[in-house]
Amino acid sequence: MEYQQILNSIYEEMSYRDVRGRVASYIPELAKVDRRKFGMHVYCGDHENYSFGDSEEKFSIQSISKVFTLAMAMRLMGEDLWDRVSVEPSGDPFNSLMQLEYEHGIPRNPFINAGALVIADILVDHLDDPKKELLDFVRKLTGNSNIDFDLKVAASEKATGYRNLALVNYIKGLGNIKGDVDKIVDFYFHQCSIEMSCHELSKAFMLFANRGRILETDEKILKRKTVKRINALMQTCGFYDEAGEFSFQVGLPGKSGVGGGIVAVHPENYSVAVWSPILNEKGNSELGMKALERLTTLTGVSVF
Amino acid sequence: MEYQQILNSIYEEMSYRDVRGRVASYIPELAKVDRRKFGMHVYCGDHENYSFGDSEEKFSIQSISKVFTLAMAMRLMGEDLWDRVSVEPSGDPFNSLMQLEYEHGIPRNPFINAGALVIADILVDHLDDPKKELLDFVRKLTGNSNIDFDLKVAASEKATGYRNLALVNYIKGLGNIKGDVDKIVDFYFHQCSIEMSCHELSKAFMLFANRGRILETDEKILKRKTVKRINALMQTCGFYDEAGEFSFQVGLPGKSGVGGGIVAVHPENYSVAVWSPILNEKGNSELGMKALERLTTLTGVSVF
Amino acid sequence: MEYQQILNSIYEEMSYRDVRGRVASYIPELAKVDRRKFGMHVYCGDHENYSFGDSEEKFSIQSISKVFTLAMAMRLMGEDLWDRVSVEPSGDPFNSLMQLEYEHGIPRNPFINAGALVIADILVDHLDDPKKELLDFVRKLTGNSNIDFDLKVAASEKATGYRNLALVNYIKGLGNIKGDVDKIVDFYFHQCSIEMSCHELSKAFMLFANRGRILETDEKILKRKTVKRINALMQTCGFYDEAGEFSFQVGLPGKSGVGGGIVAVHPENYSVAVWSPILNEKGNSELGMKALERLTTLTGVSVF
Amino acid sequence: MEYQQILNSIYEEMSYRDVRGRVASYIPELAKVDRRKFGMHVYCGDHENYSFGDSEEKFSIQSISKVFTLAMAMRLMGEDLWDRVSVEPSGDPFNSLMQLEYEHGIPRNPFINAGALVIADILVDHLDDPKKELLDFVRKLTGNSNIDFDLKVAASEKATGYRNLALVNYIKGLGNIKGDVDKIVDFYFHQCSIEMSCHELSKAFMLFANRGRILETDEKILKRKTVKRINALMQTCGFYDEAGEFSFQVGLPGKSGVGGGIVAVHPENYSVAVWSPILNEKGNSELGMKALERLTTLTGVSVF
Repeated sequence: MEYQQILNSIYEEMSYRDVRGRVASYIPELAKVDRRKFGMHVYCGDHENYSFGDSEEKFSIQSISKVFTLAMAMRLMGEDLWDRVSVEPSGDPFNSLMQLEYEHGIPRNPFINAGALVIADILVDHLDDPKKELLDFVRKLTGNSNIDFDLKVAASEKATGYRNLALVNYIKGLGNIKGDVDKIVDFYFHQCSIEMSCHELSKAFMLFANRGRILETDEKILKRKTVKRINALMQTCGFYDEAGEFSFQVGLPGKSGVGGGIVAVHPENYSVAVWSPILNEKGNSELGMKALERLTTLTGVSVF
Repeated sequence: MEYQQILNSIYEEMSYRDVRGRVASYIPELAKVDRRKFGMHVYCGDHENYSFGDSEEKFSIQSISKVFTLAMAMRLMGEDLWDRVSVEPSGDPFNSLMQLEYEHGIPRNPFINAGALVIADILVDHLDDPKKELLDFVRKLTGNSNIDFDLKVAASEKATGYRNLALVNYIKGLGNIKGDVDKIVDFYFHQCSIEMSCHELSKAFMLFANRGRILETDEKILKRKTVKRINALMQTCGFYDEAGEFSFQVGLPGKSGVGGGIVAVHPENYSVAVWSPILNEKGNSELGMKALERLTTLTGVSVF
Repeated sequence: MEYQQILNSIYEEMSYRDVRGRVASYIPELAKVDRRKFGMHVYCGDHENYSFGDSEEKFSIQSISKVFTLAMAMRLMGEDLWDRVSVEPSGDPFNSLMQLEYEHGIPRNPFINAGALVIADILVDHLDDPKKELLDFVRKLTGNSNIDFDLKVAASEKATGYRNLALVNYIKGLGNIKGDVDKIVDFYFHQCSIEMSCHELSKAFMLFANRGRILETDEKILKRKTVKRINALMQTCGFYDEAGEFSFQVGLPGKSGVGGGIVAVHPENYSVAVWSPILNEKGNSELGMKALERLTTLTGVSVF
Repeated sequence: MEYQQILNSIYEEMSYRDVRGRVASYIPELAKVDRRKFGMHVYCGDHENYSFGDSEEKFSIQSISKVFTLAMAMRLMGEDLWDRVSVEPSGDPFNSLMQLEYEHGIPRNPFINAGALVIADILVDHLDDPKKELLDFVRKLTGNSNIDFDLKVAASEKATGYRNLALVNYIKGLGNIKGDVDKIVDFYFHQCSIEMSCHELSKAFMLFANRGRILETDEKILKRKTVKRINALMQTCGFYDEAGEFSFQVGLPGKSGVGGGIVAVHPENYSVAVWSPILNEKGNSELGMKALERLTTLTGVSVF
């Protein structure tokens, strides 16, 4: 089957009516999103795109942004980064503060909040204008200069982000945060608020399916080894408490966000983004998981 | 490069002299193993074998046995198994008892001890002679009827296995162990004591690289989906506290044992076993990890 | 007011009808106890006794037995005992296994189960026939040779005591249990099953109100300092998760059991036992707490 | 023996040379304190004072301030306070964040930092100028209008107080902090910085030995029941991880601070303050503990 046929069949098979989860509600801005939204985009190159539904509509990428900031931090620090954050799955969420205490403030991986906040600290420390440079980075990957923060979302995160403030202060007390707490969480809440469409996300993630080079220009952004590391991290740690299930269902490295987006990459082949804001109980897009499972099943692609 | 050439170059490059770890010492029998041992075997079929060093020498497979018992339990229970044990990475070891408490006795995955003990309970519950049937299963996969327990090792494990006894009792108190505690740990300590060579292990694991069928006879042992599930679990949970690192270095599903063995599978291609008893600080074979990393690098194979 | 008048007024004021808790149900034998039972006994000497209700009826003393075994262990080991068990409150129950792990198998105090099991190990290790010697000790304190175990209760505890078995094995794995696991839990389940009346309990605890001497014979059983230590431990650790509340309400050192008994001592004055099997949500006798609060209020006695 | 004789003998027996602990160093200002300082003051009334050494020299009262703020909060909220903070010992420090998570942001007691921060929130919420009112309260109890904050110490605490900031944010995320995070920690760091002498502290704490009334004026400040509650809390929770040991050694309700001060009260008799900045490994004044143990032994006073 052709990709577009596969996508068409997924779009026909699945509907928001079949899933019972809820749209993220922890910040008011996210709770407003229409639960009927559903889009998917497979990117193989600028002249080879497949999609359905709301694939051109922007949504809040939330934790998917952690992959971008990790890539930026690895460009700045290389493998030295792993002195500040580890690369292992974290297990259940309850252990995170205990784990920080016993492992001297080194978060388990860059995709749990503690780790992403250490990454944010690194960017704030190294860059003159980290928010601008993050936007520049994502705009370059997508070739789209209108990608931006949703300032309402960022403000909303800030107004309720006490747990993240607790984390930064806690890690700072343990010595693994260098910079100013307020600047770090300000940067972090902004990165989570970036708005992108499935089309844009899949194009940006082609970097990780294309050995660290922008496909269209062949510009080298990341080392081969860095890409391998990031893909391995997405495989083992990309889905909160559901990394094992995603690894089984989809079999590709990927990253989800609480805004309902999921991106995944099939190295040397394609990258794909899907969006449906209805979350399962683990906080991942319910339709998104199913759609990616169908995609890899129908294309016969799985690493296992 | 041909597989044999690659193996030769690994054998030339690497030596027990270059690694500083220690042989497992928690039971006296394992501590006696000669630290100079080093062997590797790539199995592509009975007429296509590549190997070096001590690849025909038997060693204690320890936790690698958890893959065999998981396969047996899935044959008995199918997907219902996941009501008894979960499929997610467990994070740091300290949280395991806490996690059991909060998740009502459901271990995080079948490869942590708590999970393997629940699997042992299932086998003891369903099978008339579970120890014999386990040996039969492994003998069938390898076509080798002399595979057996090392009774000294089993007795040694029993004499020091208080933590495993604590786990079984704890889980029984939470309602997720049905059978007799002593029978379960007796079975568990025996399964860990199985002795196999790299040759035998790689042949046995071909099952997981060959869609659940024994390669030579084409006999179907496991469903396609079961194999996918087990491979996904090996990818995310197969290496204690180093699953993320192994996923990055090697990029294949695999499982290690504290006896110094590691097996990995490249679905549709080969299975490989390596053995060196010197462990790194996370409890995985130091040379084994390096050898597998070289193998996948030189063959240009990685899922990422 | 005279003691007997005070007791009379308590008996008139309070009734099992006014409390909503439940009788302990974790073992079938305890669940059979009549929830209407209510008795109290103040012991000032063999010729000075005050009581009401079911004060002569025997009930399962459960954790109150931990004070007797602690006293016996201190006679055997003196202050060296504190190398094996600590003397501090334990906080919430969830932390107990974590705490053992991080504090190398040293339980927080002798009244949590982990601590009582280490005490049981010490007695089993030092004594030829620990069960007989425990009965001898309690019989001597009460002058009553018919005090005995309830073997049905002991068997019932054994049949469901997986968590205690888990604890002993866990501590043994950490090196702080010397003896045979089965003997230790057998002893422990027997000690919990001892049956005594309020009259007998209050007479036995006079030891702790009388500087370590049996009041009637003036025989010295414990050192002055040992008594002070045990009383201090009862004050800070005697009431599971409600030590702070008991300290405030009653202001005396005491110990409760899940059978519904509570004993308390007013050094140099009296000892008192109360029994009502209805437990509050923290596992302490609801009427028992209230009755003791009234007693100390009406006698104007409180340490604060 | 007379009090003054007892104090003289303590002063002769004990010296900073005999103890090996260290002065608190977590903030630079505290680390500067002269380790030779040693003073004690027993207060029975303005005309009945006993003392030795540096009993008139001011030092940083640190956590002793938590008793003053608790008393103020109980005046404002009465027993409703216990909806916001519990009254039980907290066990080992590692569990505090876990405990908050599982108990919905309700700290275990008002003397652990989490609890004191909730108390600070209450005062900041109810009072127009909480810092001034705290000083007024302490000045009234002592009759000394020159008691004040040490602004250097307060600033020093603020500069390193990331863990307290983490706690406030964490509790706010769980809904049990109402006010502005920065105001709360500012108040908290100020309360800890109050400077008082042993003489002043013992006079202030006479409130808790005198049923809630200022001894000299007989003005009623606290209800009888409130005093009983605070004394019970000091008895079970006043000494960090050493409440059980203090209860045994001294047998009186008390509270220590990391500045090396300890206060204790003997209800209806006296209050006492001791100061030596050398801390034992649990963070309590080493000489202070010993001096109080001698005092209660020599006066024959102990609750047990």
